[in-house]
Amino acid sequence: MATLSFTPIGTIYTPHTTLQNMPIQPLGAKGIRGKIVLNKAFVEGLKDLEGFSHITILYHLHKAEDYSLLVTPFMDTEKRGLFATRAPKRPNPIGISTVQLIAVNNNELIIEDVDMLNETPLLDIKPFFSKFDNRDGSKSGWLDDLWNEQKKHTKSDGRFA
Amino acid sequence: MATLSFTPIGTIYTPHTTLQNMPIQPLGAKGIRGKIVLNKAFVEGLKDLEGFSHITILYHLHKAEDYSLLVTPFMDTEKRGLFATRAPKRPNPIGISTVQLIAVNNNELIIEDVDMLNETPLLDIKPFFSKFDNRDGSKSGWLDDLWNEQKKHTKSDGRFA
Repeated sequence: MATLSFTPIGTIYTPHTTLQNMPIQPLGAKGIRGKIVLNKAFVEGLKDLEGFSHITILYHLHKAEDYSLLVTPFMDTEKRGLFATRAPKRPNPIGISTVQLIAVNNNELIIEDVDMLNETPLLDIKPFFSKFDNRDGSKSGWLDDLWNEQKKHTKSDGRFA
Repeated sequence: MATLSFTPIGTIYTPHTTLQNMPIQPLGAKGIRGKIVLNKAFVEGLKDLEGFSHITILYHLHKAEDYSLLVTPFMDTEKRGLFATRAPKRPNPIGISTVQLIAVNNNELIIEDVDMLNETPLLDIKPFFSKFDNRDGSKSGWLDDLWNEQKKHTKSDGRFA
């Protein structure tokens, strides 16, 4: 298939400077602040964005080289199909994260719950709208199992017994 | 900034063959079925995906040429900043949609609530997990206003009075 070319529209700055100890999803990055610096040529496109509490950002997983079709996800022990995981090493290493939008100052956006590496190239900003984007009652296979399993462990590990 | 190259991993087939009368978001495409045909080279990566009721797909908005930083969205009358809209004509025309996963048959996925054009190039498949992806209590600026306004109109248009 034909190759597609994209050019980053800005850069995401975060406190995460190494691949070790990265938060898992914005859920694991609660309260951690970062900053988007948008190329000034695009600043007019930020109009009306301040009314949104959350934005979904698309970015290049720029340190993810190569990929495997079977991966062992964080906190799991079994090999899973890559497309059933959020592992960063993918045929097209594009990440998506829904983060809190704290402030817009000209071409700079202060954001919170950042789970991407420092100096990540930004591809797009989309407004989050719960009516479009939330899904209630969804089922999530191995992730549901893992989530329930870990809650169970949390409840029953007995360290205060 | 350096140009990034991505190669589609498959094709999304839908009943939408022209840009006219396209559904607005999966919400406007309830029950409309489509099919993903993944390149066979990637089929191993689909392992474990059947346990998920929803997937978020990333794709090339392949008929969106050029872009403006101010756009008048569907069903709105005011010009909005592009990044506060989901308009398809963007600096990097990458679309995201969370669709229902109905079935996986080898390298073919039957999906529902499809809001993209027929023969859309697929870039990535990510599993949807409500714990990661839902946001409760979010605020969505002009989209909230429009949503509330249109609900009000629906209730008061008086056609059965």
